[in-house]
Amino acid sequence: MDEELYKLAKTIIRSAKAKGLTIATAESCTGGWIAKYLTDIPGSSSVYKGSIVAYANEVKENLLGVSKETMIEHGAVSEQTAAEMVKNCAQAFSVDIAISVTGIAGPGGGTAEKPVGLVYMGLYIGGEIKTEEFQFEDNGRDGVRRSAVHSGLQQIISSMGQIHP
Amino acid sequence: MDEELYKLAKTIIRSAKAKGLTIATAESCTGGWIAKYLTDIPGSSSVYKGSIVAYANEVKENLLGVSKETMIEHGAVSEQTAAEMVKNCAQAFSVDIAISVTGIAGPGGGTAEKPVGLVYMGLYIGGEIKTEEFQFEDNGRDGVRRSAVHSGLQQIISSMGQIHP
Repeated sequence: MDEELYKLAKTIIRSAKAKGLTIATAESCTGGWIAKYLTDIPGSSSVYKGSIVAYANEVKENLLGVSKETMIEHGAVSEQTAAEMVKNCAQAFSVDIAISVTGIAGPGGGTAEKPVGLVYMGLYIGGEIKTEEFQFEDNGRDGVRRSAVHSGLQQIISSMGQIHP
Repeated sequence: MDEELYKLAKTIIRSAKAKGLTIATAESCTGGWIAKYLTDIPGSSSVYKGSIVAYANEVKENLLGVSKETMIEHGAVSEQTAAEMVKNCAQAFSVDIAISVTGIAGPGGGTAEKPVGLVYMGLYIGGEIKTEEFQFEDNGRDGVRRSAVHSGLQQIISSMGQIHP
C-alpha cells in the first residue's frame, strides 16, 4: 500500500461525499490503478462509480467511443483521444467528474515525438472538458505508471475544487 | 509491487501469448486491482484487452448488463450476478477468457448470510461459463481484496489450461 496515493484517494472520496459529487475513470496506461486506489477507501461506492480500463486500442473505440478517425489521425496517446475517452466515460457512468489517462508507460512504444513518460489526461468537470499533457521522467514502467496515478488523483482533487453543485 | 501477484500476472500474459488467447476482466470488489497487475507486464496489451470496473451496483446493470431481476433476487454479491457479469464482459471485449469478481471486502456490508470475505467469481472459458464461491479470511479490507486478486489470477491460469484453441 502506497501511503501517499492512499491519502490522495481518501481526500477524493471524503470531498466527493461532502460535495455530493460522483466520479468515474477511463484508464489506458494506468490500467486500473487509479480505480484500485479509489476503491481502497471503505464506502467509496457511494461516490465512485467505476472505470473502463481500455487497455487495447480497439477497446478505446468499442467501449469508449473514440472515433477511428481520431485514432488514425492523432493516435491512442493524444490530447484528442484523452478528450473523447473522458467525454464518453462521463456519459457511460453519468457522473459529475471523470478523468481519462492515456500514455506511454514503456519500456517499449516510445518514439522521438512521443517518448516514454508522455501522458495525456482528459478531465470532465460538470459538463466541461479539459486536457492536460504530462512528460514524466522515464524511471521505468512502474515509475511512469505511478507518476500518472499520482497526477491523476491530484487532477481529480483540483477538478472537484472547480465545481459547485 | 507485490512479487507474488506480479509473477502470476507474468505467467498469465506469457501463456496467453503462447496460446494466442485474449483476456478481459469485470471487477467489483477488487476494483481494478487485477487489471493493474495484468497491465504491469510490458507488452500485455496484445492479449489483455481491459476491464470494466463496475463498482457501483447500477454500473453492473448499465455497463455489464446484469438484470435488475438478478440484482433484486440474488443481490450484487451472488453466483448469478458473477455469471451475468462475466458473460457480458466476454461479449463486450470479444475475448477467449474472462473473469468477474464480486464480493464483500468490508469493513462494512457483511451479514450473517453474506459475511465479509465472501467472493463470487465468474469464469468465461471459450464460451462456457462457470462460477466459484470463496470465503476468504476477514483480515481487513486490503487483505480480503488481495486474496480475491490472488485467487482471480490463479483462476485465469487454470482457465487457460482448460482451453485448446
